[in-house]
Amino acid sequence: MIGIFDSGVGGMTVARAVEQLCPGFPLIYLGDLARTPYGSKSPAMITEYSHRNTEFLLRQGAKLIIIACNSAASAASGFLRSHYHQSIIDVIFPAVAKAAAVSLNGRIGVIGTRATINSGVYEQRLQESRPECRVYSQACPLLVPLVEEGWMERRETKMIVKKYLHPLRDKQIDALILGCTHYPLLKKIIAPRIGCSVHIIDSSVEVALHLKQILDADPDLRTALYAPDIPSRFFVSDTPSPVHGLADKIFGRTVLLEKTDV
Amino acid sequence: MIGIFDSGVGGMTVARAVEQLCPGFPLIYLGDLARTPYGSKSPAMITEYSHRNTEFLLRQGAKLIIIACNSAASAASGFLRSHYHQSIIDVIFPAVAKAAAVSLNGRIGVIGTRATINSGVYEQRLQESRPECRVYSQACPLLVPLVEEGWMERRETKMIVKKYLHPLRDKQIDALILGCTHYPLLKKIIAPRIGCSVHIIDSSVEVALHLKQILDADPDLRTALYAPDIPSRFFVSDTPSPVHGLADKIFGRTVLLEKTDV
Repeated sequence: MIGIFDSGVGGMTVARAVEQLCPGFPLIYLGDLARTPYGSKSPAMITEYSHRNTEFLLRQGAKLIIIACNSAASAASGFLRSHYHQSIIDVIFPAVAKAAAVSLNGRIGVIGTRATINSGVYEQRLQESRPECRVYSQACPLLVPLVEEGWMERRETKMIVKKYLHPLRDKQIDALILGCTHYPLLKKIIAPRIGCSVHIIDSSVEVALHLKQILDADPDLRTALYAPDIPSRFFVSDTPSPVHGLADKIFGRTVLLEKTDV
Repeated sequence: MIGIFDSGVGGMTVARAVEQLCPGFPLIYLGDLARTPYGSKSPAMITEYSHRNTEFLLRQGAKLIIIACNSAASAASGFLRSHYHQSIIDVIFPAVAKAAAVSLNGRIGVIGTRATINSGVYEQRLQESRPECRVYSQACPLLVPLVEEGWMERRETKMIVKKYLHPLRDKQIDALILGCTHYPLLKKIIAPRIGCSVHIIDSSVEVALHLKQILDADPDLRTALYAPDIPSRFFVSDTPSPVHGLADKIFGRTVLLEKTDV
């Protein structure tokens, strides 16, 4: 099975994209609601939580791990890759590759949580991928709580998005990475505020496309993970009420969330 | 020493009020930043975290515990009182007593996190204290993230406060309990939006006044806790950057936050 973890339910945008682009590959999802959000916490704490989440997924039989949380990917992917022999895919690399490929003028924007932006991981990987590019980053710490409240269409959310995007507006960026798995749910209000000519890169879709390429290129891994009769399972480490609605909204159907201790 | 815990730094409004009203009584404060916020988590999870926090404070030598977090008080004060012989004071009772005393028309509003409001603890205790009163509650889940971002004076915050208070405006309340230790930092924008004739009850101040009464009434406890030469200490279970600023803002001076594992 394919293991996916996130600090909460935002990473379900990744699970949903994987389900659509790689049908027949069952998932084990873990949303660490008991400790959510990660984006405001320290790299050491995020690494500790990511370690525990990975242990849980491997115990459940995961053969490949997707870090479906940008904050966790930015803080903990190095540690997890050095610690486990299993393949570890994170949401950052595929989005970086896409941005480096589609940007014509090499001016790329990144928005994310404070943990993700402070880590500098997007700047670093974009500059490795395309050394001449200019990267403009903006932490948007209030967007996760706004999405989790279901305030995707509210006037206040639009104003806050506009305020956060304002410093990027003058930079002539032509690509913007949504560096948080919650942000695809705000794509409709982000797009007109950053400008129609800016290519918006949804890290959830890119990581699913990247997984598809890996599976296409590795028949043994594909065979090991393909099991269309096994249903995906979704675990959460705590179960507050409003989150159920968000998971269902992301999937467009009722999702059974199973409570587990991590 | 007097132990105080909160999910983060909001409870420092309580520590500050205790310091001002009960000088000479050193505090041990614990802000559980590794798991913050509590207000969106389940009662079982909040109880588990509150238990661990209390254990930590007792190990540090606390002789009396103040639960300086409404979400923790609403979920865990019953458990903690049945589990420990030490005095456990929480932020809810003093605010309830004050509201029941000052309201002339018996129509009382309460605002708090989702965990606090869903628990129904304020309704229950207000009705025990003053059976004929009518209680109107409103969860305000975005106010904690807004305060933690330091957006106390922003237009968006004022709009969101107005939106949250709107359902209470028609109820002819004459007292409003700020049922979250972050909310005193928004008092200036809450007051004009709920109406100048509404008595605003700051649970941080009320709990400090309640502690003062307890100390005045119990000379043995007073003697045991009075130690003007011992400095207060402030622990946090994680140390992200923006929080330091908030702690300093609450205290009006630089506060040393010591990192600890809970």
